[in-house]
Amino acid sequence: MTIEGHHLIGFESLAGSPDDRGISAVNPASGEPIAPQYPLAGQDEVERACQLAEDAFLTYRRLPLVERAAFLEAIADNIEALGDTLTERAMAETGLPKARLEGERGRTCGQLRLFAEVLRSGDYLGIRIEDALPDRAPMPRPSLAQQQIPMGPVTVFGASNFPLAFSVAGGDTAAALAAGCSVIVKAHSAHPGTSELVGRAVQQAAKSLNMPEGVFSLLYGSGNELGQALVKDPRIQAVGFTGSRNGGTALLRTAQARPQPIPVYAEMSSINPVLLLPQHLEANAEALGDAFVASLTMGAGQFCTNPGLVLALSGTALERFVEQAGTVVRDASSQLMLTPGIHAAYHQGVARLKEQTNVTLVAQGKGNNELACPCQPHLFRTTADAFIGNAELHDEVFGSCALVVECESVAQMQQVLTALEGQLTATVHLEEADYELADKLLPLLERRAGRILFNGWPTGVEVCHSMVHGGPWPSTSDSRTTSVGSAAIQRFLRPVCYQALPEQLAPDSLKANNPLDLPRQVNGKR
Amino acid sequence: MTIEGHHLIGFESLAGSPDDRGISAVNPASGEPIAPQYPLAGQDEVERACQLAEDAFLTYRRLPLVERAAFLEAIADNIEALGDTLTERAMAETGLPKARLEGERGRTCGQLRLFAEVLRSGDYLGIRIEDALPDRAPMPRPSLAQQQIPMGPVTVFGASNFPLAFSVAGGDTAAALAAGCSVIVKAHSAHPGTSELVGRAVQQAAKSLNMPEGVFSLLYGSGNELGQALVKDPRIQAVGFTGSRNGGTALLRTAQARPQPIPVYAEMSSINPVLLLPQHLEANAEALGDAFVASLTMGAGQFCTNPGLVLALSGTALERFVEQAGTVVRDASSQLMLTPGIHAAYHQGVARLKEQTNVTLVAQGKGNNELACPCQPHLFRTTADAFIGNAELHDEVFGSCALVVECESVAQMQQVLTALEGQLTATVHLEEADYELADKLLPLLERRAGRILFNGWPTGVEVCHSMVHGGPWPSTSDSRTTSVGSAAIQRFLRPVCYQALPEQLAPDSLKANNPLDLPRQVNGKR
Repeated sequence: MTIEGHHLIGFESLAGSPDDRGISAVNPASGEPIAPQYPLAGQDEVERACQLAEDAFLTYRRLPLVERAAFLEAIADNIEALGDTLTERAMAETGLPKARLEGERGRTCGQLRLFAEVLRSGDYLGIRIEDALPDRAPMPRPSLAQQQIPMGPVTVFGASNFPLAFSVAGGDTAAALAAGCSVIVKAHSAHPGTSELVGRAVQQAAKSLNMPEGVFSLLYGSGNELGQALVKDPRIQAVGFTGSRNGGTALLRTAQARPQPIPVYAEMSSINPVLLLPQHLEANAEALGDAFVASLTMGAGQFCTNPGLVLALSGTALERFVEQAGTVVRDASSQLMLTPGIHAAYHQGVARLKEQTNVTLVAQGKGNNELACPCQPHLFRTTADAFIGNAELHDEVFGSCALVVECESVAQMQQVLTALEGQLTATVHLEEADYELADKLLPLLERRAGRILFNGWPTGVEVCHSMVHGGPWPSTSDSRTTSVGSAAIQRFLRPVCYQALPEQLAPDSLKANNPLDLPRQVNGKR
Repeated sequence: MTIEGHHLIGFESLAGSPDDRGISAVNPASGEPIAPQYPLAGQDEVERACQLAEDAFLTYRRLPLVERAAFLEAIADNIEALGDTLTERAMAETGLPKARLEGERGRTCGQLRLFAEVLRSGDYLGIRIEDALPDRAPMPRPSLAQQQIPMGPVTVFGASNFPLAFSVAGGDTAAALAAGCSVIVKAHSAHPGTSELVGRAVQQAAKSLNMPEGVFSLLYGSGNELGQALVKDPRIQAVGFTGSRNGGTALLRTAQARPQPIPVYAEMSSINPVLLLPQHLEANAEALGDAFVASLTMGAGQFCTNPGLVLALSGTALERFVEQAGTVVRDASSQLMLTPGIHAAYHQGVARLKEQTNVTLVAQGKGNNELACPCQPHLFRTTADAFIGNAELHDEVFGSCALVVECESVAQMQQVLTALEGQLTATVHLEEADYELADKLLPLLERRAGRILFNGWPTGVEVCHSMVHGGPWPSTSDSRTTSVGSAAIQRFLRPVCYQALPEQLAPDSLKANNPLDLPRQVNGKR
């Protein structure tokens, strides 16, 4: 599979007209563009991809679960078969190191295979059956059976910061394909070549397993035009997005303004508070400072779960933590950021913090003039009162930038937590002597975050059944779901109930003798 | 418990100032107002109810599941204890017959008790646990545990057409209280006395079982002002509504325009297509005509699932059906409608249909000048082409009014189904010789409806685990949930994941030894 600079629409590879060419990746280390230029999808490409997605959906959603599972596995195999071609292209386009990209590839393929397992188990169908009670008085009961069905064609927006795991064949695509939805991906403009390679892996899997044409398409576009067109299209029934708060909110508004509103799962913005409880802080201030900065600077801080906020009670232990963290930050080198745009936004965010009254710069890392897009780590501090009173301090600064908030009392710490917007994660560092305090804080954290973690760091998201990578607004636009882990399949499903369904018309999943051996709840019992 | 014309805010019963009095019920038979007048909630009442709901939520959501279950059962007991006081008041306010209201009371109490069962089983918590793998290479896995938690205070709008089952202690209230949310109900202005009686039953149950004050409040208001204020309040985290398309859409827009958008579960509009497949129609045309009109005229057609659209292939069998249905409609008496507003809207809807070109009046029922708000049944017919070409024919006319659409071919029937908006139900009448055709239509019906029923009538919704009373837009604003049945609890929940949660801090539901004996998925296995 080679990079040709093409849209992938159904089983076709389309060059687009020379006039349409507009996007190319930029090497964030050098600032130089990387060939080829990619075409921009217009109305024709959107129409063709959407109509194919609609047509494919009718067939694809009714395929046996094992066939959809095999498709997901074939995608994973094809991605692995891309080998260094993929990781080298991704390195050039994103500036991410090889080991990170290899790990991310493993996670991406692992996700696809996890959803294949989910399909084979069939638990996700949520089957609930109530048998007929023809003799019930005063009214007989007809038989009733509920199962989850896929919503329809889905649009997925590739994310810049995970060019594999949250991009073309990332979590949302895997979940939607598993659910039985066809998928149109809008490639992220920062890594079009990586997107094309992965897109070809998906396209090839679809062809080789005789999936209906249109189950997957991949389009390129610049600005908002393509994204808006896809979200407006009446055939699209749900949207997955990972990116900025402005970007996600704009798509949500568009989806809500449609004649038929549709769900948007946008992951947007989170500062991921880390609470250092006093007994544990006292005993481990320096070690916590080291570990915190390691998490803060990992991957130039370009994680949705980057720890951007630290809360602790005033005192010498906090001062020791700040001192140590400041020392490590000062020693930290600048790392390459993903794109010139992210780099510019990081610098603006840091500059804004420097201008705030009652905010002090604790330390900044080493600069690096050799990189086009360096991330110089920054650590700031402020007081709880200042934090509560200034909404700008609650904004995410995407990159290795964090703010330590000093609280004068437990009550003030609770006020800070109450003032926070919704978060993907909240972290508590504690030991047994802190449990009583933790017990008071936990209910507040549950209302603010989708994942609460103890004595760890929020960067690093396990792909498994129990993960929640989601949370209250504005961390996501829909706190009822997760974008990571097997529960993500629920994003693209809705329930349907069949009443007095004749056995001959029943899908295998609902037949009386349960030929697929699916887990089912029957008359209230599993 | 007596009717005093009071708001119920937390544990208080508040008269409101005499200037605030604005609403009274109207007897739809006589058109006369029914005392007392009710006060209109203003900013003070909204503030107090919302703050109490927020405070109560913090305690209520953490109560043991069995205590919440006991609360729901006490509400049911208290409603039953109201006896004829409740049914007689509801009869006067709604014009519904006693037997219907007694049935609805049974359903309402049954729903509350079903959710108590759901709480005792604990399956709804959706617990998924992954044990720690400290020795996993290259990275150890921390323990992870996911469960569903309640969203926060909820606003429920009482519906006019089910003064008990979709009102103050109806499905949404029961589901939200079960989920662990506090609830503020906006009483429907058509049955304020019924609302107050049921509200007192809930309030009394909360007091006697020492629930936190504010777990439930009941407010009255006219127009949109109160509803808008409740949906805008930042403490409210979800909304349940059953009513008109305009009303539901307005609330949805408000909820989406908040700084923090929240879910709105609005059930709005459905014409509930009924398909009469040819072999079955041929053999049963007259019987189907009789049964159809019985469903159409039940309760003056004031059901969300009223069969407002009949689809069949052209031919003598369809003519026999229309002839018979027309005969029965002509013989049908007018029934009392719920409110002057619904009566006026019905007449406008019927008048609009009479004006349409290519729409023929088949029959209308007997008039009744003695009733202030009579529903005179109407049956119209049109062609598939006319139906597809005229969006006005797709609008719900709430009441005993239906449209028969004659299709020239199966392909045209499929076109009609494709042109339909989302529906709560779709019904198929068929016999074995029709199964081949049904198999072609079923995928279209699944995309359009939340419940698909065979050889029955959509009026009549079983309250059970497998029911789906919901469907694609505009039948509801969120096709991912149901408003009837035990799955409705999912409306008010969101998942949270705990990572490396210390055992001493774990809620009972997640403790290692599973002291509540809850169904849990552990390491991918139940």
